[in-house]
Parts: sequence; structure tokens; C-alpha cells
Amino acid sequence: MSGGEFNSWQSVQAEVLRRINAREWKPGDFIPNEAELAIEFGCARATVNRALRALAESGLLDRRRKAGTRVALNPVRKATLDIPVIRYEIESKGQTYRHTVLTQERAVPPSGIRARMQVEQGVKLIHLVTLHLADGKPYVFGDRWINPQAVPGIEAADLTVKSANEWLVANIPFEGGDFSFSAMTAGKREAEILACKEGEGLFVIDRSTWNKGLVITSVRLTFAPGYQMHTKI
Amino acid sequence: MSGGEFNSWQSVQAEVLRRINAREWKPGDFIPNEAELAIEFGCARATVNRALRALAESGLLDRRRKAGTRVALNPVRKATLDIPVIRYEIESKGQTYRHTVLTQERAVPPSGIRARMQVEQGVKLIHLVTLHLADGKPYVFGDRWINPQAVPGIEAADLTVKSANEWLVANIPFEGGDFSFSAMTAGKREAEILACKEGEGLFVIDRSTWNKGLVITSVRLTFAPGYQMHTKI
Repeated sequence: MSGGEFNSWQSVQAEVLRRINAREWKPGDFIPNEAELAIEFGCARATVNRALRALAESGLLDRRRKAGTRVALNPVRKATLDIPVIRYEIESKGQTYRHTVLTQERAVPPSGIRARMQVEQGVKLIHLVTLHLADGKPYVFGDRWINPQAVPGIEAADLTVKSANEWLVANIPFEGGDFSFSAMTAGKREAEILACKEGEGLFVIDRSTWNKGLVITSVRLTFAPGYQMHTKI
Repeated sequence: MSGGEFNSWQSVQAEVLRRINAREWKPGDFIPNEAELAIEFGCARATVNRALRALAESGLLDRRRKAGTRVALNPVRKATLDIPVIRYEIESKGQTYRHTVLTQERAVPPSGIRARMQVEQGVKLIHLVTLHLADGKPYVFGDRWINPQAVPGIEAADLTVKSANEWLVANIPFEGGDFSFSAMTAGKREAEILACKEGEGLFVIDRSTWNKGLVITSVRLTFAPGYQMHTKI
């Protein structure tokens, strides 16, 4: 191809992807550097950089600062997951959202939660169980622990009005979080809360969120049978 | 802060994040444009651009080409998931990988698979059931359909040597895929294959991959009890 056709980073990305797919550049091969590609494509070096970065982020290129850029040998494809507030997730399906606080207490957490939240033994945390409903039917419940020391204002908040999920997102900044996705078998408690049968397979998300080195909250979300989480790559 | 401290896009990103977290810039607020920030931070405009793009990708900023950049009102946090080849996933845990093909046939797919793979009624596809083992124990099994018309060379491949999962990644380029994550209840078949009890909750990934507009393969991966998928944001 002649230069000048590559006036967007997307067009450069498409051409690089074509060469990888056509095996003109094979897994493990070094590809030309940004300056060389910019000359070949007749575009700015920043345009090439943007295209290669996108391909590296999706796992197809392996970029090393000094060694150069290679076609990934063992491509680990990366998918992006949206993590919305539960109310938005339900409302975006055209369903009516409602939530209800099943229990709220101050309690000493079990050792697994204590370790995950990095609090001293004997310290009490806020423990909340909240059921979220879509069109009046159980959608997911959250069994949540909150460290009041890391969450100013939580003591005064009425979490029956705004759910803890939404209140935290709106009021407390966070730097990062850990997510884990798994399946569990519904026991008596899950069956009662979610109005399903004991022994049904349920989708579970465990999530801890932190800010300034403190774990703010740790929640287990247990979804009603049939829940699916989608993504594309 | 004085200019000159911001000599990397990461330092600009950290300062913008600090202002959002400290509510100096509140949800919904427009922030200064790139040129203004570049002057304030004493750095190149490209550096500001890179930092803002990263924050937009993680859902904290809402960028509109003409309207400008605002702090996101309803932040949808984005998490990145790694999708490795199953052998790499098992070996990266220090376990020994093995796979075994349970069944391989040419068959007319059920209507759900036919619709997902966009083939005409009556067309036969390759149908494979493969069990992947970690240290000799069932880890996951894949119930897979492959469109031979979209996968040159598949007829000659010995999928008992390299699993279809690995063979496809190594030999067939793909442009994109759909993923769906859910839970199911183990029936008799799953319990037999995975050596678990009927009625256990199992983690499931449904995945379809395409190239040049053709669906190459569609696979349901059903994991043994206890499987967890992790990510961070």
C-alpha cells in the first residue's frame, strides 16, 4: 500500500492486524520500530504509537521498552468488563429497580473478611445484607462489610434510601478493587433470599475496594439463577 | 503544585485522580481542556492526552469530542480480564496440564448453536468434547462446535495432540469474540465428566469467536467446582 492512506490510528491498527492475521508477521517476530512504520505508512509517529499500544493492550503485540515490539507468542486476549452500579444495570434493561436492607448491624467480622479488610482482631465493622430487585423479583443480594474508619459519613447515611452500593460509588472515591467470579450451590439461606430452589447453581462476584491503602468495603454478590455477565473482545 | 513535576503521563493521571477523589472536580463538572492543563502542568499536550485517555478508559472521565471532558456522573468502572489458553492457565499455577478428547464427530448442530454460528440448516459442523486436566484432575471441559468452512486445515489436524483450544489460537486468526459468564447446576453428565456431585454449582463460560464475518467456533467451558476467575481494576 502507498503512504497517505494511513491518516488515522485505526487504519494503521487494521493494517498491522491484517499482517499478523495473514502471518506476514508471525508469532514471535520482531516488527519494524515506530519510526520505520511511520515512514512506511506516511503518518505521524504518534499515530503508529497509538495503534501499537491498542494492539498491545489487547494482547496481540508484546512491547518491551528496549528490546522492541514482537508479535505475541502466547497471546493472552484481554476482554473488558463493565462494572456498573446495580441500579443502573437493572434500569438499563428497562426494569424497575428496588432494594431492601435485610439486616444491618455492627459486628466483628469472620477471620476471612478480617484478613481481606486488613483490620485488627476484635474491631467491629458495619455488616449489611441488601437485596436488589428487578421488577419486584430478586435479582442479586449483597453481603457487605464496610470499614467505618475508611468511610467518612457512613454512620449518618440512611442506606435504606440509597443502597450501600450506590451510596459508596457516589460518595467515596476509590483507587482500585479486586474482583473474583465463581459459582456456588444455593443453600437454605440463598434459596430463601433469592426465592429459588436449594441446590441451584448461582453466579457469585466477590469484590473488595480500597482507597489510600485502606480497604473500604468487601462484598459478596450472589445472583439469582439465570444471571449472565457479557463482554466482547 | 508547580509545573515541571509532571514529566510523565502517570504523574498527570495521579494528579487528575487526586482532584477527582478530593472532589475538587466533582461528578458532572467540566474539567479544563488539554491545552490549559498542559500549561498548568508544564508538560506536553500529548502527555495530558495520554493521562486523560487512561482515565476515560477506566470510566472516570466522560470525553466528548466537541463538548469537552467531564468527570463521569455515573462511573461505570471497567475491569480487564485475561483470556489465556487453558494449558497456559494451568501451567502458570505450577500444575501439569493434560487433555483428552472425549468425543469427536461431524454433526448437525442444535438450533441454538446453528443460530449462533450462522450456518444453514442441515450443514454439518465438527463437534468436540475435550476434558482439560490439572495435575490429573478434571479442571474444565469444553463442548465445542467448529465450522470447518471457516477453519482451513482443521480436517487434517490431530486434536488429540494439541487441544482444539490451543490449535485454534496458534493457527487461526480471529478478529473478535463474545463472552458470557454464568453459573449452572451440575447434572448427571457434568458430574460424570468433572468427577463431582450432581447438584453442585459450576462456573460456565460461553464463547464464540469470529474472523472476517464468519463464526469460527463456539464453545461452552464448564469448570470443576471451586473455580474462580480474578481481575483487578
